[in-house]
Amino acid sequence: MVRKIIVIGAGAAGMTAASAAKRTDPRAAVTVFTEDEHIAYSPCVIPWVLEGRTTWNDIVMHDASYYSEERGITVHTMTKVTAVDGNTKKVTAGGRTYDYDTLVIATGGAVFRPPVPGVGLKNVFVVRTINDGKKIQNAMKDCNRVVIAGAGVIGLEMALSVRKGGKDVTAIEMFDQIMPRIADKDMAEPVQKHLERFGIKFVLSSPIQSIEGGDTVRWVTASGKRYECDMVILATGVRANLEVPKMLGLDIGKLGAVVVSPSMRPYRNGVLVDDIFVAGDVVQCESAIASGPTMSQLGSSAVKQGLVAGKNAAGDRASSGAVASPWVSVIGDLHIAGTGLSENLAAWYNIRTVSGRAEGFTRARYYPDHKEMIVKIMADADTHAMIGAQIVAGEDATGRINWLTDAIINGTKAEDFLERAENAYCPPTSMVRDVVISAAENLCNNLNR
Amino acid sequence: MVRKIIVIGAGAAGMTAASAAKRTDPRAAVTVFTEDEHIAYSPCVIPWVLEGRTTWNDIVMHDASYYSEERGITVHTMTKVTAVDGNTKKVTAGGRTYDYDTLVIATGGAVFRPPVPGVGLKNVFVVRTINDGKKIQNAMKDCNRVVIAGAGVIGLEMALSVRKGGKDVTAIEMFDQIMPRIADKDMAEPVQKHLERFGIKFVLSSPIQSIEGGDTVRWVTASGKRYECDMVILATGVRANLEVPKMLGLDIGKLGAVVVSPSMRPYRNGVLVDDIFVAGDVVQCESAIASGPTMSQLGSSAVKQGLVAGKNAAGDRASSGAVASPWVSVIGDLHIAGTGLSENLAAWYNIRTVSGRAEGFTRARYYPDHKEMIVKIMADADTHAMIGAQIVAGEDATGRINWLTDAIINGTKAEDFLERAENAYCPPTSMVRDVVISAAENLCNNLNR
Repeated sequence: MVRKIIVIGAGAAGMTAASAAKRTDPRAAVTVFTEDEHIAYSPCVIPWVLEGRTTWNDIVMHDASYYSEERGITVHTMTKVTAVDGNTKKVTAGGRTYDYDTLVIATGGAVFRPPVPGVGLKNVFVVRTINDGKKIQNAMKDCNRVVIAGAGVIGLEMALSVRKGGKDVTAIEMFDQIMPRIADKDMAEPVQKHLERFGIKFVLSSPIQSIEGGDTVRWVTASGKRYECDMVILATGVRANLEVPKMLGLDIGKLGAVVVSPSMRPYRNGVLVDDIFVAGDVVQCESAIASGPTMSQLGSSAVKQGLVAGKNAAGDRASSGAVASPWVSVIGDLHIAGTGLSENLAAWYNIRTVSGRAEGFTRARYYPDHKEMIVKIMADADTHAMIGAQIVAGEDATGRINWLTDAIINGTKAEDFLERAENAYCPPTSMVRDVVISAAENLCNNLNR
Repeated sequence: MVRKIIVIGAGAAGMTAASAAKRTDPRAAVTVFTEDEHIAYSPCVIPWVLEGRTTWNDIVMHDASYYSEERGITVHTMTKVTAVDGNTKKVTAGGRTYDYDTLVIATGGAVFRPPVPGVGLKNVFVVRTINDGKKIQNAMKDCNRVVIAGAGVIGLEMALSVRKGGKDVTAIEMFDQIMPRIADKDMAEPVQKHLERFGIKFVLSSPIQSIEGGDTVRWVTASGKRYECDMVILATGVRANLEVPKMLGLDIGKLGAVVVSPSMRPYRNGVLVDDIFVAGDVVQCESAIASGPTMSQLGSSAVKQGLVAGKNAAGDRASSGAVASPWVSVIGDLHIAGTGLSENLAAWYNIRTVSGRAEGFTRARYYPDHKEMIVKIMADADTHAMIGAQIVAGEDATGRINWLTDAIINGTKAEDFLERAENAYCPPTSMVRDVVISAAENLCNNLNR
């Protein structure tokens, strides 16, 4: 008997799961359904395509025929799943019904559209799929003033991308800082200043009240003020796509996403569902730091979870641990990265924190082209465990935030990290004492005074 | 009573110890002695100065008057310590005698001169101090053919630096690979090929037998062959400077360096010496991986140890853990890094190993200017603990090797690392699944088949 595996969704989680399932059980029949026209691409790269750094064609790794011919995986694009029955184990898609032995749900998320008047007007866009990106690219030709709604990482990336296209750009954020969920105010400020130098205007502490216009958008109101524009890009966060999970009656957690076990199995009325696996933006993760749920919604998390889901759907016994959710972005000349909790998230979990901070360089002080680097590390004031870190630097933040992530996931105490930590050094790639270690020392001093 | 602290040596370990001691006890009288003319510089940068990337002036962070005026530390340059008495607690230097309450020994190392005929000829150089570098710079004007004796990291850096100055360069190595102690053969090979593309010639498996010439060097013989040259640079490893430790009768370990406790105190006949601290290239460290001694001899290790030694010499209670000794170098267009044990070192410790490896890119595959990246991770075949890793990449190896170092120092099992590890992702700085994690997966597959 051939094992029938159906995957719903063809983003990073879905396609990774499909490939992992086929590798684990090469005789399995693996079938993927997606409403999207394109598969196997990274939506994270859309701002850079709009900026002209790469092309729509280049960012699509493979098309459906590649998966069919090279990997023996059948992919149905532009095909909506209209029904799933967990008892008879059948999926209905594109008017046909398919049996499954195991099912992987990787339906991802959709951009949250704030419930304000005018959100459906012409030239109000979201950034999620290649086709979203192409619509923006097309509309850009006739637009001069763009409002970005939401100053999270994607909002900032889009703001700069559009600004580099010569447009007048205003980013409007409801909180009193940019990147309010994942970055601390003192780390967000240098990033905001950097973007202001490119000519981007910021309006903080201002929830958008309405989007106005006739045929097309003409202005946005926020905090009682009017911001004239001919395009609005909504970068207002991502909500899990729960249509399929709800068809199956799966438990939804308090963050509005599917609750999963470490094997990426969901629950129904608190009972583990054995033959379904869920991965990517549609799941709620367990925090490695606080005893509570968290949302990762990162491409790297989707791949990691997709691997586990795909292997297990094909009969393996893989598992995925609790998460710190490290992230990084390159915005202008800055590399911005974070991991674990921000101060705002720590407050949400009721954790009392102490932080340490160091400023230095990415290379030796005297080495040409060295860039500034700021590292901040936060610890639980009671246990001294490291619980979060952020880096703003001119280069090379990625490996360093992964380093801190390893320490944070392992619950390392700040003092133990400082005693043990070693850094590789050569003048073109670091200071003799890496800024990460200097920040850890400052943290230990602050914890113990 | 003012605490009198004497520091012997003004390299990374010595000057860090002096500053840390003064910060810990601001009223202490801190006095430093060095035979060198310059202080507070990184010898690691000498190859890059010779290449013209920076200048001798720029690499000296501070001079003696800065330390005196800004930090209240007295530094005696070009002053040799001729006697130390641990009973009366006196140091004799430059013909005068000084009392100490605590003593920090940071006498560093010296380049090992192989015991072959002609090693004292004119135009046979070592690379250790700024004055060594200036001598090479001066001699370069009249030299055309240079032999580098020893193809470790410093030998390779010097080979490329001299080659970029237009010289004919041959690197002669006694082992059958470059970087024989710290890198595995399969990781050393792409580095050798890269350097050969710059026109550097390599002669492997050939210990140098003699250096010949009249007034000045004319050729080197190795494995019975003659290599004509008008300059030889010895990059044949560093041995601890044991003159001062021997005056004090301190215990010397089997690797030929001073044995120290985690507080950086030495031993005399197996008994801890309370009022002396030792740091930098002169000490033998405890390996974080194998139950045995190891040599770090890295600038970053010297700073770390100097901090602990300096704090404790001023009455604090700091300690330094066992080490993995991560290192990195930029050689041509390659970033080469390693941590923990190489295969050769693991064999020396009698550890049975399994390794995993992945090849990928430093950025997303489609992102402009992405570079190749090879990551290799090694585990103990019995315990599955990660014990070593190496990276060869076009950029961004440093943070990633620190990340792996954290896991290795903590004794993380390969399977646990893979289950927990997360990587920050954005297209300009990593693949969606970092090459480090792909290498860890390959390692787990190899361990469990």
